[in-house]
Amino acid sequence: MENKGLVIVHTGDGKGKTTAALGMALRAWGNHLRVLILQFIKGSWSYGELEGIKALASENGRIEIRQGGLGFSQRGDGEEAEHQHAAVELLALAYDELQRDEWDMVILDEFNYAYSFGFFQLEDLEKLLSARSERTHLIFTGRNAAPELIDRADLVTEMRLIKHPFQKGIKAQKGIEF
Amino acid sequence: MENKGLVIVHTGDGKGKTTAALGMALRAWGNHLRVLILQFIKGSWSYGELEGIKALASENGRIEIRQGGLGFSQRGDGEEAEHQHAAVELLALAYDELQRDEWDMVILDEFNYAYSFGFFQLEDLEKLLSARSERTHLIFTGRNAAPELIDRADLVTEMRLIKHPFQKGIKAQKGIEF
Repeated sequence: MENKGLVIVHTGDGKGKTTAALGMALRAWGNHLRVLILQFIKGSWSYGELEGIKALASENGRIEIRQGGLGFSQRGDGEEAEHQHAAVELLALAYDELQRDEWDMVILDEFNYAYSFGFFQLEDLEKLLSARSERTHLIFTGRNAAPELIDRADLVTEMRLIKHPFQKGIKAQKGIEF
Repeated sequence: MENKGLVIVHTGDGKGKTTAALGMALRAWGNHLRVLILQFIKGSWSYGELEGIKALASENGRIEIRQGGLGFSQRGDGEEAEHQHAAVELLALAYDELQRDEWDMVILDEFNYAYSFGFFQLEDLEKLLSARSERTHLIFTGRNAAPELIDRADLVTEMRLIKHPFQKGIKAQKGIEF
């Protein structure tokens, strides 16, 4: 099975889920693959990532980021409907892009967050998975990956927090946390 | 504590240790930090990564990769001395670069592998850590991070393998595994 697109999940409470997806995007881009990054949480990516991707994109059009979420939601913040609407719209865009088959890798950043909030159902996930061509890699990131996603995945990695600088009272650092 | 350089470790048997370091390199580069990547295992990085980094480097000189290792060694392959020599040389280069203080982030890719092989001692690690300026981030990757490194680290993440495509008989895929 050459050129089989994989369904990949990065989950767990540790760092590195989105960061490793970003590294995969860079590697794939370097391999002349076309990479689409969809952010289900607006603002979860920072200046550094966006500038880095922008620099790659300016070389050619093979990489693109689209933000569709509304930011981290809290149950009971009165804005669930808007958060859900934004997430559902982005998922519809993901579906359309997969059907158009113009990308070799699609990263659904913080999909797991939106899914665990109940913004999508299993049938939405099934529809998405069946829309992709055989060749296309799909990468889902975020804590609390659903068991039904893990069941359908080829490669699942859990990022586990062993030690965190905030535990030592060290502030977030530019280039690391943001 | 603003601009405090962190000691970061990516370890575990899962995917994403080097890939997340690569993502951090891209983010840091996007944040105008200067990034040096040292590979203790030659050939552990593939065409895709190298092309990606090369594209960033061609924009300006703020990112660089140097390979110093000899490839994966096996105990008893008769070449331990050469592997060790190459690794020790690269560590000396890391030390010099840290003392010159021209980088904001230094990634020691597969350092843990070389360390667990006994190529370096604790005093070498101590010397390296004390050579860096307060601002410089150091990232160590590789399985089996030494407890003495974890003790000295600020941020430690374990990448745990939950599910791997090889288990399903799927071959390594371009843009993912290499």
